Amino acid sequence: MTRVALWVAYEGTNFSGYQTQPNGRTIQDEMEKALSRIHKGAKLRIHSSGRTDTSVHARGQVVHFDTTLTIPAERWPKALNACLPADIRIMEASIVADDFHSRYHAVKKEYRYRVLLRPDGDVFRRNVTHLVSYELSIAKMKKAAEALIGTYDFSSFCAANTSVVDKVRTLYEVSIDYDRDELIFTLVGSGFLYNMVRIIVGTLLEIGAGKRDVEELANILAAKDRTIAGKTAPGSGLFLWKVSYESEIFSDSY
Amino acid sequence: MTRVALWVAYEGTNFSGYQTQPNGRTIQDEMEKALSRIHKGAKLRIHSSGRTDTSVHARGQVVHFDTTLTIPAERWPKALNACLPADIRIMEASIVADDFHSRYHAVKKEYRYRVLLRPDGDVFRRNVTHLVSYELSIAKMKKAAEALIGTYDFSSFCAANTSVVDKVRTLYEVSIDYDRDELIFTLVGSGFLYNMVRIIVGTLLEIGAGKRDVEELANILAAKDRTIAGKTAPGSGLFLWKVSYESEIFSDSY
Repeated sequence: MTRVALWVAYEGTNFSGYQTQPNGRTIQDEMEKALSRIHKGAKLRIHSSGRTDTSVHARGQVVHFDTTLTIPAERWPKALNACLPADIRIMEASIVADDFHSRYHAVKKEYRYRVLLRPDGDVFRRNVTHLVSYELSIAKMKKAAEALIGTYDFSSFCAANTSVVDKVRTLYEVSIDYDRDELIFTLVGSGFLYNMVRIIVGTLLEIGAGKRDVEELANILAAKDRTIAGKTAPGSGLFLWKVSYESEIFSDSY
Repeated sequence: MTRVALWVAYEGTNFSGYQTQPNGRTIQDEMEKALSRIHKGAKLRIHSSGRTDTSVHARGQVVHFDTTLTIPAERWPKALNACLPADIRIMEASIVADDFHSRYHAVKKEYRYRVLLRPDGDVFRRNVTHLVSYELSIAKMKKAAEALIGTYDFSSFCAANTSVVDKVRTLYEVSIDYDRDELIFTLVGSGFLYNMVRIIVGTLLEIGAGKRDVEELANILAAKDRTIAGKTAPGSGLFLWKVSYESEIFSDSY
């Protein structure tokens, strides 16, 4: 058996999220179908660094699977892409150690969230941004975000419907960049709770809009209570950007 | 009556082209529905600078209509966008002379065609580019394109199923720019025949791929015969970029 890790990109718009489910098109199902075709109908299971929700995108999702085939790493992307729909692309493959696990061995994850600042939107970016037509104070959001850096119990920023018990995570970076008509939030952390990025962004947007004070964020964090944080920002702006492991699996372009 | 001209952008992916038709979602239908809502159910007719086909996009389509309402120009985009789907956006409106016609008064049109040069494609650009995975000589395509500049009978580059009799058009510019992993073809002309840009690009790609000689293009043009030109390139890469009139209708950002 050989364990193969894949760098996967997808546009989440036309998927019911990453994880396989009885109804709806999912990224996991499409990839397992493609693998099955390559393995003459045998069913294979793919494991990912974590699921993504409906309409959420990935630039750098990492998954792994075991195979009896002896295809060289550099030939896997072409073989799989030929069987995959155009909204999922395998960017690179790497033969990894037999005990490598895309989820359990991830040491750092980066998410980005794109906010489009155009009153009327943009037809070409409507599926890959969250449109905000109200005024935002970037300075206030940056100031508020500082309170999130560090190791905390992020219960206030975790969707209520989760089975995870330990809600302590470390955030290394929460930055906000301004690029023409877009705001790009970059969040880097040891790991993320369910909906954590979207609830943080949603709360920061409420602060930026002046609906909440900058100082509130520290209180929200301390309260460990989802109900007092802001709204969950829409999935369309969210990208799983990069997953890091102890040693690099892919080339420099990852 | 007031005549209003609109600058319209749309992503053509989920439309059966611009022009109204019995089956399928069209840009004209969506816009006429939106206008009807604003005019309390009255049916209005929209005229465009020209139709676009299925999956073809517009950055700068121009349309016009007549209204009895006295809404100021700057308020039309917001009013219409509130009634339009997110893949059509009104970018700007302008009150024009009663005899202005978006099609008959157009003096110049610019189209762009995006070719994506990545063997495995890109999930985020799959609907707005044409994916080419073979090697292309840009120098050969540029050289060949020179033969197209000027006033000619472009019958060889016009889809056979057209009722247009006069096929003489003037091309002012056919340029090819290289931007990281994309080729961008820019075609500026007095007007364009049905499928003209896509047949020109398709033929240039065959020359770039070495399937045809650079010198062939002049012969194809001279033959006035669609059957000897190249394949029609897919609609997904094509953008109606800009339509020009004797005097400017919109702001500098158009």
